[in-house]
Amino acid sequence: MTISTRSIKIHSKEENDMIDLTEQISDFVKNSGISNGVVTVFVSGSTGSVTTIEYEPGLIKDFPEMLDRIAPRNLDYGHEQMWHDGNGHSHVKASLMGPSLTIPFIEGELCLGTWQQIVFLELDTRSRTRNLISQIIGE
Amino acid sequence: MTISTRSIKIHSKEENDMIDLTEQISDFVKNSGISNGVVTVFVSGSTGSVTTIEYEPGLIKDFPEMLDRIAPRNLDYGHEQMWHDGNGHSHVKASLMGPSLTIPFIEGELCLGTWQQIVFLELDTRSRTRNLISQIIGE
Amino acid sequence: MTISTRSIKIHSKEENDMIDLTEQISDFVKNSGISNGVVTVFVSGSTGSVTTIEYEPGLIKDFPEMLDRIAPRNLDYGHEQMWHDGNGHSHVKASLMGPSLTIPFIEGELCLGTWQQIVFLELDTRSRTRNLISQIIGE
Repeated sequence: MTISTRSIKIHSKEENDMIDLTEQISDFVKNSGISNGVVTVFVSGSTGSVTTIEYEPGLIKDFPEMLDRIAPRNLDYGHEQMWHDGNGHSHVKASLMGPSLTIPFIEGELCLGTWQQIVFLELDTRSRTRNLISQIIGE
Repeated sequence: MTISTRSIKIHSKEENDMIDLTEQISDFVKNSGISNGVVTVFVSGSTGSVTTIEYEPGLIKDFPEMLDRIAPRNLDYGHEQMWHDGNGHSHVKASLMGPSLTIPFIEGELCLGTWQQIVFLELDTRSRTRNLISQIIGE
Repeated sequence: MTISTRSIKIHSKEENDMIDLTEQISDFVKNSGISNGVVTVFVSGSTGSVTTIEYEPGLIKDFPEMLDRIAPRNLDYGHEQMWHDGNGHSHVKASLMGPSLTIPFIEGELCLGTWQQIVFLELDTRSRTRNLISQIIGE
């Protein structure tokens, strides 16, 4: 049993930018020399998130729209009253989605469905440089 | 430290079918010979999800109703415009819930509460055969 | 590779009480003697949850308010009709958020952002004594 950790730097362009991480995570697993195990993908930061989705133009628009129904930008957020940085809605969305994702792999292949990609979603109101941690445990 | 992986095939009957996986996962842990560790349950696919819930008839109805308030079926989904398969709402629900669940166990017993069961929730619009991955890491 | 499990007892004061667990989890990791790995935090129970958030007075109010928009207390819950314990909304919120959180650590330091804390959120309608499981796997 062994462990391998890699930091992934990504640059989001704007609010709701959804970035496909599947190839990067898949290559990390393949090149690790670990056959069976689990990879954890974690967002270091409180206004971004990771999940899986069918990465296609329709859902890239639909998913953030669903989050906007739950946490519209222009509500009266306590966070805004305290800090005036305009991203109260970003924080509540990120905390609902959660910062981590755990994916098993078998014989070097991630157990994803055909139409299931790993994505980072920028929830903050501007372009950000993001630090994701991806960590494999297995044998 | 060792690892054990099992594929679980399930057959959902219809949209919002909620299937109790607790006994299966619990048996897998007990029969693995691993005393302490963590079990990951992962849905391979982008229109189903796993979580924990008190598995009783009231909540089996309440939980999908809550998801329908967030992502009603008849909104104008970009996914629908692209693919015409009628399940844009299924995808956004599944990506919000997330595909994975991680449960520790101690001396062969899952650390679940008395009224806390592990469930798969079918979010697609029809009966599906589903492939879940359950993986134990521990010693 | 080794594993270390600790039970964390917490006392919530009321519905929506949000409790910062960061120092406790961080100390557990530091004192474990394990340098690199992953810590899982799991809520044993079906009306509480864990996530990460910027722990400040604004968001401590904003996040539960967002959940109340999704699952208002006074809807006609099937759970209420069955059990009359007044917490149908608590259950659906907890199942949406999920019971588990997975955080990598490197050289004894949790991979959290500066403004990202680990929190337990009480979703039940009253003060509760809660049992959380925190488990480290690493080397």
